[in-house]
Amino acid sequence: MELYVERGFDETTVAEIAKRAGLTERTFFRHFADKREVLFAGAAMLQDLFVGAVTDAPADVPPVDAAMAGVVAGGAVIQERPAFSRQRYEIIAANAELQERELIKLASLSAALAGALRRRGVPDHAASLAAEVAIAVFKIAFERWVSDPVHLDLPQLMRASLDELRTVTADSETGGPAATRP
Amino acid sequence: MELYVERGFDETTVAEIAKRAGLTERTFFRHFADKREVLFAGAAMLQDLFVGAVTDAPADVPPVDAAMAGVVAGGAVIQERPAFSRQRYEIIAANAELQERELIKLASLSAALAGALRRRGVPDHAASLAAEVAIAVFKIAFERWVSDPVHLDLPQLMRASLDELRTVTADSETGGPAATRP
Repeated sequence: MELYVERGFDETTVAEIAKRAGLTERTFFRHFADKREVLFAGAAMLQDLFVGAVTDAPADVPPVDAAMAGVVAGGAVIQERPAFSRQRYEIIAANAELQERELIKLASLSAALAGALRRRGVPDHAASLAAEVAIAVFKIAFERWVSDPVHLDLPQLMRASLDELRTVTADSETGGPAATRP
Repeated sequence: MELYVERGFDETTVAEIAKRAGLTERTFFRHFADKREVLFAGAAMLQDLFVGAVTDAPADVPPVDAAMAGVVAGGAVIQERPAFSRQRYEIIAANAELQERELIKLASLSAALAGALRRRGVPDHAASLAAEVAIAVFKIAFERWVSDPVHLDLPQLMRASLDELRTVTADSETGGPAATRP
């Protein structure tokens, strides 16, 4: 990670990363498929956190709140490593290929959230929408948080973003949620 | 496009595409950077439609409705080519690399929508949220529409998805949008 910051992602070799970490290249490749995976090794854990929190949410919690429980659980763990998260964000922001990989990660997380919601009995379409909303909140709150990860609170920013999303979607010509129309 | 369906995307060469279309390879490359671009050539037009509709929305239209005007304008044009859209969808669904390219396209469209909203004076964060909501609606309505593109109405499905999203987000423990709390 430090090497990516110092020299740029494309210019860093696996040999250099392994050396800095005190590993042989062979040991490196036992842990990571390639040098991108150093940055995305946490994705599986994040997905487990998301899915676990959705599964554990009480049965009467509505879909978006269950999905939010997932991303907030992930946010709480991400927040424990502010320096890592900031560095990782900057490395990815500087490299188009890594940005693509990050988009794929978010799409997978959204699909995993939707799957966990469907297993709670949420209908297909509502599950996809709730998952997309939670991922949008996750993404936008993360981008805000990472600008000052030492002082800002990520789970709190996520809740604030959901509130703002509700305001933005409800504050509309059509008079708000269809369900509450007279 | 037909060739991608017949033989698979990876197995089709530019020479074969050009021959089928009655073009030389040289002419093909004058129009498309590579064979992927045959599938993504419409992205720039779609972005122009999105941005144009957002820009042209009356000044008093709230952010999400302005963003929705963008995706609905795009949906109306997509709907004019049901067979093409269905084929394109199936080709992309069968190829991981093309799915990545599609995710990148959606992220670019979201950024373009957010930019158009900011130029209307929508604050940064609200613009991003409204754009993400509109893109989620676009994506989910499109997936529903493409299952039967001859009979379903894409703009109508988009409006229905937004209504459902409003229901899904408002139907919550916290009692709905923050703005309407007492």
